[in-house]
Amino acid sequence: MSETLRVGIAGVGTVGAAVARLLARQSEALASRTGRKIIVTAFSARDPGKERDADLSGCQFFTDPSALAASPAIDLFVELIGGAEGPARASVETALTHGKSVVTANKALLAAHGVELAALAEQKHAALAFEASVAGGIPIVKTLREGLAGNSIRRVYGILNGTCNYILSRMEREGLSFEQCLSEAQKLGYAEADPTFDIGGFDTAHKLSILASLAFGVKIEPDAIDIEGIERVTLADIEAAAELGFRIKLLGVAQRTADGVEQRVHPTMVRKSTPIAEVMGVLNAVTIDADAVNELTLVGPGAGGDATASAVVADIADIARGVRSAPFGVPAEGLLELVRAPMRRHEGGYYIRLSVPDVPGAFAGIATRMAERGISLESIMQHGGKRGAGREDGAPVGVILITHATSEHLVREALEAIHRDGAVKTPAQVIRIERE
Amino acid sequence: MSETLRVGIAGVGTVGAAVARLLARQSEALASRTGRKIIVTAFSARDPGKERDADLSGCQFFTDPSALAASPAIDLFVELIGGAEGPARASVETALTHGKSVVTANKALLAAHGVELAALAEQKHAALAFEASVAGGIPIVKTLREGLAGNSIRRVYGILNGTCNYILSRMEREGLSFEQCLSEAQKLGYAEADPTFDIGGFDTAHKLSILASLAFGVKIEPDAIDIEGIERVTLADIEAAAELGFRIKLLGVAQRTADGVEQRVHPTMVRKSTPIAEVMGVLNAVTIDADAVNELTLVGPGAGGDATASAVVADIADIARGVRSAPFGVPAEGLLELVRAPMRRHEGGYYIRLSVPDVPGAFAGIATRMAERGISLESIMQHGGKRGAGREDGAPVGVILITHATSEHLVREALEAIHRDGAVKTPAQVIRIERE
Repeated sequence: MSETLRVGIAGVGTVGAAVARLLARQSEALASRTGRKIIVTAFSARDPGKERDADLSGCQFFTDPSALAASPAIDLFVELIGGAEGPARASVETALTHGKSVVTANKALLAAHGVELAALAEQKHAALAFEASVAGGIPIVKTLREGLAGNSIRRVYGILNGTCNYILSRMEREGLSFEQCLSEAQKLGYAEADPTFDIGGFDTAHKLSILASLAFGVKIEPDAIDIEGIERVTLADIEAAAELGFRIKLLGVAQRTADGVEQRVHPTMVRKSTPIAEVMGVLNAVTIDADAVNELTLVGPGAGGDATASAVVADIADIARGVRSAPFGVPAEGLLELVRAPMRRHEGGYYIRLSVPDVPGAFAGIATRMAERGISLESIMQHGGKRGAGREDGAPVGVILITHATSEHLVREALEAIHRDGAVKTPAQVIRIERE
Repeated sequence: MSETLRVGIAGVGTVGAAVARLLARQSEALASRTGRKIIVTAFSARDPGKERDADLSGCQFFTDPSALAASPAIDLFVELIGGAEGPARASVETALTHGKSVVTANKALLAAHGVELAALAEQKHAALAFEASVAGGIPIVKTLREGLAGNSIRRVYGILNGTCNYILSRMEREGLSFEQCLSEAQKLGYAEADPTFDIGGFDTAHKLSILASLAFGVKIEPDAIDIEGIERVTLADIEAAAELGFRIKLLGVAQRTADGVEQRVHPTMVRKSTPIAEVMGVLNAVTIDADAVNELTLVGPGAGGDATASAVVADIADIARGVRSAPFGVPAEGLLELVRAPMRRHEGGYYIRLSVPDVPGAFAGIATRMAERGISLESIMQHGGKRGAGREDGAPVGVILITHATSEHLVREALEAIHRDGAVKTPAQVIRIERE
């Protein structure tokens, strides 16, 4: 058996403690799998006296994660501090500069500095592993980087934020409003007091930028993502989706197009009975659409101490076995500049909900504006209450259009024309349909 | 860039041709990912003149796969001949003996000789990779061996045979009989002229024995699997399952129990809306139930030239990068003897369909026999036609029992007692329920 691999953990919260427990519990199995003993020898944390959910007695303690990263007491540095800058970035750079391999769960750090960190790691012949940064316990990084190494990937998309999926699932299952579900999620600890990062789609976008880099061999560009959150999804949309055989999910989608790589995060209509539509609650799921394998879907826990620790420990085990892949599959210097496909060129079907006065000709006016731009409609239906049944004459009714595949810019133009016509007063709700 | 990796392919049928095409098409990307050029330099086949769906001009040709395996013209041997013995086994042994790495899709060979081949590979510091042998394009071997390296696995189960899943899906969707669907599957090329190997559960069992070894670190023991095929599943069962919120799938299940490792292949009731229940048609799916990750499901194509080639090429890429894991995760000499948990000790819920005379007391007699053995019933329902409605008095009716978790041997005893009582004339249909 080779020499012991000495691990230092920076940040011993829920995930850090779970990593320490898992390494201790699986000590024998990991030694048998990797040929090396793996032990935690040191850790860093802000508060030395804090009660922790792991036995770290006998470990060297550091308050400064960079001092831990540079310490001769460790061979491998596990960064679980979080944040794109500050101590997380500094300590990861320190570890790599010292030729120590790094395992991190920090999606913000990778989204901001992943490419330069990968280059540094490669230069120092160290590993930089980040399975835990995307979709928690789902081994999606390994799958994209290694499991599908022979494929040309066309599209990767998924449910990457458990908070949003929990809220959308509850809205559908219990007929509750977005606000009610968000407040429940906050009570249960599934959502932060300030939920913007999750429900606004920004967390999904960070993760998507990492997946896109792995899938397409491009530099990480979180700023090149079109982002819409789930705040505007109403119960009316969810009910209409259900009637039409769809579910609404917040998806992150990255896909190759003739115009470049399209990266987008938005509420999406997915057809029921597809694997991703059936993923409810806090689970995550990722589907990969590629030339050889056709379609592969992975479903599992996207968060939680133990599930995230599962991914961290798998990375540690690979490093213990001596595996040194380029962090993003291809060498950092070979990553291409991302050419951003403009969102207005997006092609797909659309769900459009409009509030239309119940007067003769209103339907015809809308349909005409669509037809003028060559947008063909799969269906047009009235939603929420029969026409004229106990309602004021001429009061608005909900109208739902489902389009066949068309272009984003045509849809936007048609909606502008409809608004200019004056019949529709409130903004349209537009939700993109993701093809299977 | 390191030296070129020269690949020899033994058996150039659908999969072999797809591997050659994929290696050529992805040549540049693979060189960038692995740091080496990967080229096919030689192949073997029975018929030198046969038209093939890949350009192998310039490759050296062999009729004897063992001669190819021993040839100095190749560094890596891809075995796609099939069969547990004969040329497949001989050529793989030859390649390993010569210190050449082997990639194979041959589940029968692995089920029969996997452990000794792994030991030989380890001794020669060669790789033995077999991602394509289980569940086609789904990277389940990598996931179990590497992606979940930090987990203690409790159970692994899945839909591992597309033919069976296609038949069961069609029976449900179109209300057709088993025989009708089998004959359609044969016409479409999804089932062999002699379908026994697929529908009898033997193909699933081979694959399951490989998964169990990876999951539990035990020697492969296909003979220690309890196997039932789908031949006895009727439309009545499928309809009753649907009414009760279940689907019937042919699952391979391997799980740790207090009595050892339980390995079984049988038609199984799985609750609708679980990821595995939603897998329809020729797709495969595997769910892993483990301590850290909790539950992970992978869904994808289980067969087909391109999907299988995707797995073969991923293995080739790993080998090109210099990755040398023990084929079964832990060194072959460390694999434990499998202790077979006896099927009669199996614990779980049961679906039982009986044909019962429609006379007073029949229900009570059955319920009593169950209760005597402490089997508690979740439901007892009559199926297929209302009692007495246009039927002969006393003619048998279908009765369906769903039990809470109990033991296989208690169920068998209760059914024997019910038969001894004389009211039930035909054998009971018993389908195990798989808990989530």
